[in-house]
Amino acid sequence: MAKVNDNYLKLPGSYLFSTIGKKVSAFQAANPDKAVIRLGIGDVTQPLAPAIIDALHSAVDEMGNAETFRGYAPDLGYEFLRNAIVENDYKARGCTIEADEIFVSDGAKCDSSNIQEIFSLDNKIAVCDPVYPVYVDSNVMAGRTGTYDTKSETWSDVIYMPCLEENGFAPELPKETPDLIYLCFPNNPTGATITKSQLQEWVDYANKTGAVIIYDAAYEAYISESDVPHSIYECEGARTCAIELKSFSKNAGFTGVRLGYTVIPKELKCGQTALHGLWARRHGTKYNGAPYIVQRAGEAVYSEAGKAQLKKQVAYYMNNAKIIKEGLKDAGFTVSGGVNAPYIWLKTPDKMTSWDFFDYLLEKANVVGTPGSGFGPSGEGYFRLTAFGTYENTLAAIERIKAL
Amino acid sequence: MAKVNDNYLKLPGSYLFSTIGKKVSAFQAANPDKAVIRLGIGDVTQPLAPAIIDALHSAVDEMGNAETFRGYAPDLGYEFLRNAIVENDYKARGCTIEADEIFVSDGAKCDSSNIQEIFSLDNKIAVCDPVYPVYVDSNVMAGRTGTYDTKSETWSDVIYMPCLEENGFAPELPKETPDLIYLCFPNNPTGATITKSQLQEWVDYANKTGAVIIYDAAYEAYISESDVPHSIYECEGARTCAIELKSFSKNAGFTGVRLGYTVIPKELKCGQTALHGLWARRHGTKYNGAPYIVQRAGEAVYSEAGKAQLKKQVAYYMNNAKIIKEGLKDAGFTVSGGVNAPYIWLKTPDKMTSWDFFDYLLEKANVVGTPGSGFGPSGEGYFRLTAFGTYENTLAAIERIKAL
Repeated sequence: MAKVNDNYLKLPGSYLFSTIGKKVSAFQAANPDKAVIRLGIGDVTQPLAPAIIDALHSAVDEMGNAETFRGYAPDLGYEFLRNAIVENDYKARGCTIEADEIFVSDGAKCDSSNIQEIFSLDNKIAVCDPVYPVYVDSNVMAGRTGTYDTKSETWSDVIYMPCLEENGFAPELPKETPDLIYLCFPNNPTGATITKSQLQEWVDYANKTGAVIIYDAAYEAYISESDVPHSIYECEGARTCAIELKSFSKNAGFTGVRLGYTVIPKELKCGQTALHGLWARRHGTKYNGAPYIVQRAGEAVYSEAGKAQLKKQVAYYMNNAKIIKEGLKDAGFTVSGGVNAPYIWLKTPDKMTSWDFFDYLLEKANVVGTPGSGFGPSGEGYFRLTAFGTYENTLAAIERIKAL
Repeated sequence: MAKVNDNYLKLPGSYLFSTIGKKVSAFQAANPDKAVIRLGIGDVTQPLAPAIIDALHSAVDEMGNAETFRGYAPDLGYEFLRNAIVENDYKARGCTIEADEIFVSDGAKCDSSNIQEIFSLDNKIAVCDPVYPVYVDSNVMAGRTGTYDTKSETWSDVIYMPCLEENGFAPELPKETPDLIYLCFPNNPTGATITKSQLQEWVDYANKTGAVIIYDAAYEAYISESDVPHSIYECEGARTCAIELKSFSKNAGFTGVRLGYTVIPKELKCGQTALHGLWARRHGTKYNGAPYIVQRAGEAVYSEAGKAQLKKQVAYYMNNAKIIKEGLKDAGFTVSGGVNAPYIWLKTPDKMTSWDFFDYLLEKANVVGTPGSGFGPSGEGYFRLTAFGTYENTLAAIERIKAL
């Protein structure tokens, strides 16, 4: 008789963004006349850049001709894309990463949830608190997190690293030594960053303790300050302790196109075992590559035209970030983030809970944000707004919030 | 200190098709003048049908306009695609499947390797022997298969169901009761099928024992005989015991486009737990949808023009299957498959091992096939050829084999 994976049953509630989606749908059904502005889920709104559209059309044409048709992609992804990644994301920044250390995928969400699979169930994970829920939930599903305490909303076997106002929303080295450390900078949800020397401390710590850092650099394109690292491989020694995850969702608007990649340096070992080989085996056995046309679109992200167009797109969203941050400050809110990241992290007024503020904002201003507590207990009393709306909607949303 | 998932280290050798790829590359490097014909990996060669190309171009244009741009897809996939699937793949065949029981994905390889995740590690799997390696390997990686015996090339905790000449390459109900049963008809690699009444026996058996059938119907489009079921839901009672996996790779040439779907009926429960909810949670947490443009391409598969064009494409490959089967028969080989499936399963001559025959065919005829033993111990002494080459290459390959 078949039995289910009981770990799934331990998961409290549904995935954060599904819950928000349902709440918003219910509100809209009850208030069909209200124009809701969504600054909640980090979904982009600007169309794909012309250079990417051209690359997609051209790849589609190739797929329609017998001479240029492509079937299964190479296991790691097409070389044209991996070479472009190496040149632009690594060599240009002085990082040594080879093309066969890049694993092209359909996005950082899949990679960040699947990567735990190559590690033992005995490993203990450390996460920032608040944190992108996928890191924790994927470990819950695997059975690595112990039991859930509904009161503290924490898992018994997870090391939480609080990111609070007093530490600039940057995690401190944990007291208990973890085996796997999830770090995401620029951070989702707080929009905070750490400097290169701060990240170097994490790399040194991981090398000393034998921990592996899973570094999510999905928001790297939004960095505007010079001492903030774009890649963990800018730090010395990262090749022996760090896996890096990258996404095309935010720098190129690929949330509906689906493309990302994972970097595993060949020197990265646990005991005698190179993680590169394990991930290669997973990729070869359980995945079948990103679509050819999408990989060509990814290549266009690195073309001269693509780079120029996407620089403007990122600037468009960062202008929204500025509008939100300045507007909320003017309205008396305590805000952070929004300088090197498309997320603004605000303190709820009058000590409201995050979900109370969510309901308040939805009902009174018809604006959707994300409750900070949905990202972990230290997110309680905070709220995330994203800069990924349109300029017009962002302006309108802030006007509405100011008018409350 | 981080530790790896030891189950990965138990996997013998590399993924079958990676090994073949390496052998062929080495042969070509040593013999640059030889024109190798590949009838090994089941990759298609015909370009995408015009209706699909049109749908892709049109969806790409939508992604380039702010008004029609699409970000994250709905968790289960777009309704336009799920509705088309329900109408064409189920309602038209008298099967009751609702659109919200369809989970759109990037292909059946991912789904067939991920589906085991929602089940307990205590479950015992049963597989056909020979079998598509992904079913077994994904369970090895999860730690569900016990220890590997290098002599018998079997796992201690897997129930093997031999598919041999004497039983028409159809599995018999196993003596030991499994929890999860993987079935694939039309079969990869043997090309064999079972009738609707034979499949009904499996459904009845699963309902009686509480087992769950994972039914891989990836090759359904190649069925030519009327008593062979296209879906397991044609059988009475399948909604309480079966998950069905479908692929667009072979019926529409999407190996490089990536699209598939999984069906989990809401009545399908293990104890009190509906599997639909578990897979929905996995889909929402660890996956982010197939690209919008690819889902539109999938919709075009079901358009009138798409259906007509793809009928021709399937007929093209099945003509190849006939050429291979008849040609090999003429040459004195014992062959099966190729009538309801794009695979021809042949007995190696002179009791050669499968890998010896692979090397022989590669060296003497410069034709690549797949060794039957790569699919399991009962595949030893057999060899798979696929009908997915071009007509010209298929003809040439058979002429070469005949001339040996």
